[in-house]
Amino acid sequence: MKIITDIITEGKGKRVYATENPDEAIVYYKDEAIAFHGLKRGRIIGKGEINNRICEYMFTLLSQQGVPNHFIGRVDERSSLVRRVTIIPVVVKVRNIVAGSLARRTGYPEGTRLNNTVIEYCLKDTELDDPLVNLTHITAMGLATAEEIRAMESMAVRVNDILTEVLREISIELIDFKLEFGRFHGEILVSDEISPDTCRFWDASTHEPLDIDRFRRDLGDVAGAYREVLHRLTGYAYQTNEEEP
Amino acid sequence: MKIITDIITEGKGKRVYATENPDEAIVYYKDEAIAFHGLKRGRIIGKGEINNRICEYMFTLLSQQGVPNHFIGRVDERSSLVRRVTIIPVVVKVRNIVAGSLARRTGYPEGTRLNNTVIEYCLKDTELDDPLVNLTHITAMGLATAEEIRAMESMAVRVNDILTEVLREISIELIDFKLEFGRFHGEILVSDEISPDTCRFWDASTHEPLDIDRFRRDLGDVAGAYREVLHRLTGYAYQTNEEEP
Repeated sequence: MKIITDIITEGKGKRVYATENPDEAIVYYKDEAIAFHGLKRGRIIGKGEINNRICEYMFTLLSQQGVPNHFIGRVDERSSLVRRVTIIPVVVKVRNIVAGSLARRTGYPEGTRLNNTVIEYCLKDTELDDPLVNLTHITAMGLATAEEIRAMESMAVRVNDILTEVLREISIELIDFKLEFGRFHGEILVSDEISPDTCRFWDASTHEPLDIDRFRRDLGDVAGAYREVLHRLTGYAYQTNEEEP
Repeated sequence: MKIITDIITEGKGKRVYATENPDEAIVYYKDEAIAFHGLKRGRIIGKGEINNRICEYMFTLLSQQGVPNHFIGRVDERSSLVRRVTIIPVVVKVRNIVAGSLARRTGYPEGTRLNNTVIEYCLKDTELDDPLVNLTHITAMGLATAEEIRAMESMAVRVNDILTEVLREISIELIDFKLEFGRFHGEILVSDEISPDTCRFWDASTHEPLDIDRFRRDLGDVAGAYREVLHRLTGYAYQTNEEEP
């Protein structure tokens, strides 16, 4: 039993609570969905519970593969215990296939397979619209050291290899994903979440998105896509009594 | 005497002509000034002649310092002979002090001195709005090899060191500049131009811009600033019979 104290931070898809242990925090996953910098808001029934279980699966997999991350264990249906890290304000995006903002940046159509994996760094700064930056911006702004960024990039590449492989076996293409990292007692840990809120998953046969793009683009059956990802990954069939709209 | 054949390309500040020698081209510098992707247009009297002489000075300096570049020699008041390169469609920006788009990207006020020099790569693609990219985008798009980009970056850093030093002696701060590079028989050459159209020069005492920002921001006496840069660099006092507006 963990004693929750105050809210450390609240994001689009979750709330993070402090606990009585200064090295640990509780992540609570919400059903709320937000897109386009808050202009589109909605609720995906069961998303919180599903993402909690998907993250449990993903972070456990990373731990088994030796990728240091913040996850300690699932606490209940909607929350998990994690190491209380200090988030580095630089998001790392890994892109295998063109989608979203990369299509706009390059002029390439969505679905274009790239010669090589694209790695992007973006500032975690909503007011600046999470701008793309590079290593020289990050060090000039004092947000992280070159060594930290190199460690983050090499972990991001490892995560991409591990996830791509696992997802291929369940007929899901890993289009792209974003990672956040945290400092924890001199170590850098993969933090935040790895879920359909932060990854683009396409069904390998139909190329239909199984992720937050279904919500962003009004493709319908958003909750069904999240359930499908969880089911393919873990075999767990999530059910809710709530009626979907 | 060079025989000019057809126009190879026409840009914001110049026209490039083919010559009877397939390895050489003529650059003709125009008075025209264009900003904000063509939304603002004007004429800076004498700019073509001044930039032609500033480029002669800058590229000669680079040659003396062993930086390979496209310049061969000035032909007349408005044009110069250059090696006919194939331009690599990636612009390299070198930034010592925050200004322009870097202020918007980072939220830092213009004039902020940076911990380290920022180097940016942008696609040379007006339709895409010359987006910022990184090495992984460039190789994924097949625009240049990693070796070419490394060579360009290392030349850009050398150019920054050389220009910063020379300009400091004439009380001009080199805020930032952009470079274009061309392929020429297996070599990479600094190409395009180095002038107040492509650099931000601030007077070291007043911090007043002596560059195209005077035009962009309606600061007045644009032609005077260009003349001043040429005069401080070379001692040449450009005069025109045309009346300024």
